[in-house]
This record gives sequence, C-alpha cells and structure tokens, in this order.
Amino acid sequence: MGITLTLDYASVLVFALTGALAASRAQLDIVGFIFFACLTAVGGGTLRDLLLDRDPVFWIADATPLAVAMAAAVVVFFTAHLMESRLKWLIWLDAGAFAIAVAAGVAVAREAGVSTGVVLVMGVATGTFGGLMRDVVANEVPLVLKQGELYVTAAFAGAAASLLGARFLSPEAAWPTVICIFVTFGLRAGSLLFGWSLPVYKGRPPRA
Amino acid sequence: MGITLTLDYASVLVFALTGALAASRAQLDIVGFIFFACLTAVGGGTLRDLLLDRDPVFWIADATPLAVAMAAAVVVFFTAHLMESRLKWLIWLDAGAFAIAVAAGVAVAREAGVSTGVVLVMGVATGTFGGLMRDVVANEVPLVLKQGELYVTAAFAGAAASLLGARFLSPEAAWPTVICIFVTFGLRAGSLLFGWSLPVYKGRPPRA
Amino acid sequence: MGITLTLDYASVLVFALTGALAASRAQLDIVGFIFFACLTAVGGGTLRDLLLDRDPVFWIADATPLAVAMAAAVVVFFTAHLMESRLKWLIWLDAGAFAIAVAAGVAVAREAGVSTGVVLVMGVATGTFGGLMRDVVANEVPLVLKQGELYVTAAFAGAAASLLGARFLSPEAAWPTVICIFVTFGLRAGSLLFGWSLPVYKGRPPRA
Repeated sequence: MGITLTLDYASVLVFALTGALAASRAQLDIVGFIFFACLTAVGGGTLRDLLLDRDPVFWIADATPLAVAMAAAVVVFFTAHLMESRLKWLIWLDAGAFAIAVAAGVAVAREAGVSTGVVLVMGVATGTFGGLMRDVVANEVPLVLKQGELYVTAAFAGAAASLLGARFLSPEAAWPTVICIFVTFGLRAGSLLFGWSLPVYKGRPPRA
Repeated sequence: MGITLTLDYASVLVFALTGALAASRAQLDIVGFIFFACLTAVGGGTLRDLLLDRDPVFWIADATPLAVAMAAAVVVFFTAHLMESRLKWLIWLDAGAFAIAVAAGVAVAREAGVSTGVVLVMGVATGTFGGLMRDVVANEVPLVLKQGELYVTAAFAGAAASLLGARFLSPEAAWPTVICIFVTFGLRAGSLLFGWSLPVYKGRPPRA
Repeated sequence: MGITLTLDYASVLVFALTGALAASRAQLDIVGFIFFACLTAVGGGTLRDLLLDRDPVFWIADATPLAVAMAAAVVVFFTAHLMESRLKWLIWLDAGAFAIAVAAGVAVAREAGVSTGVVLVMGVATGTFGGLMRDVVANEVPLVLKQGELYVTAAFAGAAASLLGARFLSPEAAWPTVICIFVTFGLRAGSLLFGWSLPVYKGRPPRA
C-alpha cells in the first residue's frame, strides 16, 4: 500500500508539472494551468482505477493528489518563463512521470491479482493515458505518435521487466518498482538522447 | 434527489442543443445530430457517475434524458438555418448548460459525501467534460483553450461559491444550486460580453 | 453468454486490424501498432462494460482479447505493405468490426436488462467508440464526421432492427445478432459503394 501510494503521488506531481507546461504553451490563465495539471496528473490512475473497479478512485478517497497538482500548477505559472525551453522541460518531465506511472499501474494491477497480460496493459495504460489526454485536449501531437521515439515501447518493456523481476528476484513491491522505473525511463531517455528506436513501418506511399 | 434530477435534465436539454449545433457546423445528417446531442448532453454527468461509482449511471437508470437529447437534436436539425449565427447560439447555450451542469456536479458530489476538494473537481468535471468531448470529436478548438476567456475559472468559482453558500447560508440543496448557477453563468457571460478575464501566461517565445 | 463472447472476440480481431492500419498510416513501430490495435479493439466494449458496471471488464476477466489484438497488430506490421490501399482496407474492415461490435453492444445490454433506449445507445456506443478513440488519438478525421456517409445511422438502424427482431421473431440471441450485423454492415456498405445517405444539414453560411 505504502509503495503504490508513494508512486501515485510522485507521478501526480511530475505529470502535473507537464500539464501546467502544456497550459503555458497554450497561454492559459492560472485556472487553466490547474485544469491541465489535474487532468494530466490523475488521468492515467483514474482510468486504471475505473478499469479495475477500485472504489473509490485514488484521488476521491483522499484529495491530497489534487492539492499537489494544484500547487505544481501555481508554481509553474510563476516560474515557467525562467525556463530556457519549456518544450524540452515538458518532454523530460513527462519521461519521468511516465516511468513512475507505469510502475504505479503495474503495482496496483499486481495487488489486484489480475493476469500477467492485464498487468502489462495496466502499466502501459496508466503511464500513457494522462499525457494522452493532455495532448489531445491541448491540441498537441500526442507523444505516442512521435515517429522514431520509444514511448509505448519503453512502458511495455518496463512493465515486462518489472514482472520478470517480481518472478526471479523478489515478489515484494520494491524491486519490481525500481526495475520498472529504471527500464522505462532508461529506454525513453536513450531514445531522446541517442535516438534509440525500433524500426518503424514504411509503406510505399506513406499516407495513401 | 428532486433537485439533482431537475438539474441533470436541464443541463441535458441545453447541452444537447449545443451538440446539435456542433453537428450542424459539421454538416451531418439527422442521426449525426442525435449522436452529438447525446454525447454532449450526458458526457459530463456520465463521467461524474463513473467516478463516484453511482450505479447505475443516471441515463441508464432512466432513459428520459436520451429522449430529451434526441428531441432537441431533431428540433435543431429543422430550425438551425433560422439562426443568425449558429456559433453565437452555441457559445451562449453552452454557457447556460455549463452553469447548470456545474451545479449538478456539485449537488451530486455533496450528496455522495466526498471531501470539499473533490466536490469542486466534480463540479468542474461535470460542467466541462460534455462540451470537451463535443469539441474534441467535432474537431473544434475546445472552449477550455480559448485565451482570455473565463471558462474553467467560472466553473471553479461557481462551485466554490456554492460550497460557501452551503456552509454560511443554508446546506439545503436550493441555495447552493442557485448561487452556483448565478456565479458560473455570470462570470462566463461577463467574459463573453465585457472581456472579463484573468491574466494569461505569457512566455517570451509563445510556443517554443 | 457464448454468443456475446464470440461477438466480442470477432470485433476485437477486426478492430485490431483497423487500429494497426491506422498505426501504419502514422508510421509507428511494432509496439505502436500493438498499442493502437488494443486501443481500438477493446475501446468500445470497455466503455460499455464501465457504463453497465460489468465487473470485471471483459478483457480483464480473460486476457485472450489482448493476445488476439496483439497478434493482429504483428501480422499487419509485416503485411500491410502488400495491400493496394491501406485506407480502403481500413475503412472496409472498420465497417465489419463496427457491425459486429454494435451487435455485441446490443446483446450485452439486453442481457443486462436495461430499457430499450439504453440498449440502442449501448449498441451505437460499443460500435463507434473504439474507432473514435483510434481516430482521435491518431489525428485522423473521425469517421462519424464524414459527410454524406451512413455511420452512426447504420449502427442505430442495426440496433433498432435487432430489437424488432427480438420482439417479433425470437428473443434468443442468435436472430437479433444476425439481423443487427446484416443491417448495420449492409447500410454502411451501401453507403460506401453506392453513396446511400441521409440528407445532411445545410445552413446558409456553412461554418459561420
């Protein structure tokens, strides 16, 4: 319980920062910052909790995550102009939040006792859904569509590594979580820094 | 119970009109009008009911809201050409539906006995989500992204005023509801008519 | 029970193919194909199960649909370049998956014992939502917005015909299902091949 809550809070904080940065790119007012921070911060975990029928949803049980997201939004509203490139910050913070959220999804799904395939999907869904909603609502190109970048792939690999760790190292929550964050963030960072990628599909006429 | 149902019906009716107007802007057929009317009309309340685990969702318990939305769609299909500016009607009807839906979200959340922060979020989510789905699916710029307009801010202020009213005036459902609609619609209308707004974020390079 | 499961599997398979084709149009890597295949394949049924509070959601109870969607994505990744026009395949496969999914939605809603209006809406929602999520996330124009094509209309007619069949022919699951698929796919195919359509709304200034 302790670990999944900690993960939820950490991903809420970092995703909220990315939501607020997306709001800054859309030049919204401070309540718009709070809106996007909350949407991004709790989007993935909310989907996970609805799908697993966890009642109540984590931020309804305890509204602290909303307060965290709100505080993050206010901080970004007054400091974003200090950043060299807001897009770069957004992408790197998203990578961190993403890695943590995948681990949170995996941890909660394992606790819920669902099958292995579903644990993988919950990891990926929890990691990607908040950022996806942020990008769709903010009219940005969703990160899942970026060609030649590892994104869903990183989440998938991290969730899979986490399951292997749980089986072969220790089923306790700490190891699988550390491995998941390490692998997901590592692959995403390698993709951003060194262009690591999987071959993409290339049809003859690209979009016919 | 009486008041929340009445609010749900009223917001369904007015949101359905805005959904049908969005369909008219996309030049769909009459079933497309019905689709957008239903999507917009029940979107926010459905999200609220799923999040609060209200079972069944309000329009599954009683399908009358769907019939109301359908009737509204048919009426708009045959009368929209009479309007001077459909966009203007859409925006003003949206403002009304929005104010009512925020009040409905607050009322239901208060009945469910969740914490104050969650009541605020439910108000905002119920108010914005239907219109957000309408705009995302119809490929329009979501109203939440309109710069220099009060939208989420109006919902937030209305929900907060409603909670203050419940504490200091009377906890009965009528007062908080009236206050919420008045504040939300008033701020939104003031924003549309007189350009009331909060300062927006201005970075140096607007979208770098 | 047997029939709704079969329908869920069939629509998962065919929708997964359309999701993978959308991924090919966006030139993603193989995990991107799997992501879009799963999103499209289980989107509509997931919404239906959440709304009807079916616990657990069909692909959480048994992860086979996810394996089916994944396999479909891998097959498309290695064979899509063989197709003459991927867009044409996408549209026709979507028509098939769509017809099956409407029938699945109607069957599950009838089993759940909800009212007639809600059965209709569940049919339409189950049929359209997976493709809608695919198109919104992939930045394609949603099929529901295509002017002069029967889409939601076909789903609506199929669901209605299915209910009539259940009342006047036989309430057993097979007849209503066959009728629903036949009518939905027939109308959609007629629209694609022969331009069948309902009159669309025409305002004076098309988008003012």
